[in-house]
Amino acid sequence: MVNLAGIKPRMLMGPGPSDVNPRVLEAMGRPTIGHLDPQFLEVLNETRGMLREVFQTGNELTLAVSGTGSAGMETCVVNLIEPSDRMLVCVNGVFGQRMTDVAERAGADVTTTEMPWGQVFSAEQVKQAMAKQGPFKVVGIVQAETSTGAAQPIGEISEVVHAAGALLLVDTVTSLGGMAVDVDGWGIDACYSGTQKCLSCPPGLSPVTFSAAAVEVMDRRKSKVQSWYLDMSMVRQYWGSERLYHHTAPINMLYGLHEALRMVLEEGLEARWGRHAEQHRALKAGLEAMGIRYLADPAHQLPMLNAVAAPEGVEEGVVRKRLLEEYGIEIGAGLGEFKGKAWRIGLMGESATGRHVEALLAGLGETLS
Amino acid sequence: MVNLAGIKPRMLMGPGPSDVNPRVLEAMGRPTIGHLDPQFLEVLNETRGMLREVFQTGNELTLAVSGTGSAGMETCVVNLIEPSDRMLVCVNGVFGQRMTDVAERAGADVTTTEMPWGQVFSAEQVKQAMAKQGPFKVVGIVQAETSTGAAQPIGEISEVVHAAGALLLVDTVTSLGGMAVDVDGWGIDACYSGTQKCLSCPPGLSPVTFSAAAVEVMDRRKSKVQSWYLDMSMVRQYWGSERLYHHTAPINMLYGLHEALRMVLEEGLEARWGRHAEQHRALKAGLEAMGIRYLADPAHQLPMLNAVAAPEGVEEGVVRKRLLEEYGIEIGAGLGEFKGKAWRIGLMGESATGRHVEALLAGLGETLS
Repeated sequence: MVNLAGIKPRMLMGPGPSDVNPRVLEAMGRPTIGHLDPQFLEVLNETRGMLREVFQTGNELTLAVSGTGSAGMETCVVNLIEPSDRMLVCVNGVFGQRMTDVAERAGADVTTTEMPWGQVFSAEQVKQAMAKQGPFKVVGIVQAETSTGAAQPIGEISEVVHAAGALLLVDTVTSLGGMAVDVDGWGIDACYSGTQKCLSCPPGLSPVTFSAAAVEVMDRRKSKVQSWYLDMSMVRQYWGSERLYHHTAPINMLYGLHEALRMVLEEGLEARWGRHAEQHRALKAGLEAMGIRYLADPAHQLPMLNAVAAPEGVEEGVVRKRLLEEYGIEIGAGLGEFKGKAWRIGLMGESATGRHVEALLAGLGETLS
Repeated sequence: MVNLAGIKPRMLMGPGPSDVNPRVLEAMGRPTIGHLDPQFLEVLNETRGMLREVFQTGNELTLAVSGTGSAGMETCVVNLIEPSDRMLVCVNGVFGQRMTDVAERAGADVTTTEMPWGQVFSAEQVKQAMAKQGPFKVVGIVQAETSTGAAQPIGEISEVVHAAGALLLVDTVTSLGGMAVDVDGWGIDACYSGTQKCLSCPPGLSPVTFSAAAVEVMDRRKSKVQSWYLDMSMVRQYWGSERLYHHTAPINMLYGLHEALRMVLEEGLEARWGRHAEQHRALKAGLEAMGIRYLADPAHQLPMLNAVAAPEGVEEGVVRKRLLEEYGIEIGAGLGEFKGKAWRIGLMGESATGRHVEALLAGLGETLS
């Protein structure tokens, strides 16, 4: 039987989870109490307040879904979509594909607009797709495509989406806490994230937030949300002052998120984004000096997710295995189109430090030499 | 801001979460590692093996869903049901009602058979309901109805369900680890539980298991499972030897479950069930000596969930509040029909001890005097 006390820590530099600070791990191990205990309700309220700060929103309906980022994606889709509603999904990587699949399962009439992997959507393209094939009720897009390392210009896209009368649904799983996510400033209507990336909390929760316009659409639904577990009309009555029982909240996970959000806000959002950008530049300089090429359009490269081509003639899986076993460093494999051809190097939250960058560059250099 | 280090521990004697052993809390705080790290895959394999032991099954498809017990309920329903499939749900409390709602949202053609709250279903009643209104693809029932404290005779019901050619879906959220749950012996086809009851792990995961017959039905589906997040055809390829990425597993929650299951098996299933039965008898004797009446049929009373009527003229909410504030003991309120009229006293896992029973009886006695 595995002795958990002997788990060897790693430097987590894949697409998530990222390294978790001991403060957050300690929080995870605090005594479990009831989900209606006044002590816990205070933790819940504060968590919601901090989520609003991190999302940069005043949205009343802001909470953490009791599942991972993919549950957050499904939450946003199934609460906004009723059968046959039209949805446009922008696809330039695995997570856009996933959103398409989720929306189809929710009964949406889905149209996709596609870009080659590693390239990004411009507002003009989204505008044209909407003009040609619209109207749509919802437009879905991934801000930070974890499979390619490319960032979409959400603020500009939001304008064209709203001009065409649709709601904007944005995946910020990889971006939140590591680069600007301005829910109110950009006018995002539904937004979901994950805890295990730039928030540096263990995986298991998905922060979500919905604009007043999105809530109005949800309130006017004619059909029940197809998922009972993810139905915001009920979940919000637990996070809200009604405190109605829906499902038992994951107490200790929420302790962890509470502490992780405190750390994000202690550092400050802009300082944190700056740290991610700075470490990305250091990593990029080092990788390029080794002749390693990025996969995403350089103008839109994500700081926290560095998708690079494995050099010709190198068995990418062997390198990853050696990094893990000999250096204790985890990096990610390519996904989808990039499977077997790419590495995904994460600089997320606690893993976005000079120590991580240096260790990775040293380990990779030695492994490739 | 709440200082989590100052969270006051409670004696958790409500309907869950139950007290969590420090060993499990320590496990929750071990360093987060990647969901494909060989160290973690070993934890995952062992967790699956231990879940099989606790469910008393050899089912290949046994795993922990990344959500709470209600997510497990939805997982079982949406994977077995395709639109218009006929399902019979046995309803004698809140969780049977919830299963009906979940099944309707999954597009099932749902028939319910009902019993007054606190009473249980006999095999004969289920047989008659099936004969009169069948055939059904799936019959759903809650073994341990947490809202009433009553236990259904699953083994006998299973025989009539299978004789009529249906699959049996059983909720063991409250029972697993606290009384017999014999998945293979009884021939249960789909079974889900929760971690925060008699397994005494924090809430956040839902153990599930599916029989070969259930898997065959799932493999023959014509439509995709409506929930992407809960689609077993994909999730099982992560827990299985394929190790295909679906969603990021909740690493630290799974550490906690691993340790909690170790503790269950160290104690031994029968010894653990015996402990729950013994503490239930002690509690019952004490409560009855105070003139407090049970709500469930005495022949089918659950050991771990004692639903009792609040004495006439007593404000049940005031008593619960005083127990929490003055004695640090949490008990549960009545749910549904029993709201405002009942208490639900849990003796689950780590909370099923003589120390808990004595403290509760003393605190309740003083509060009521």
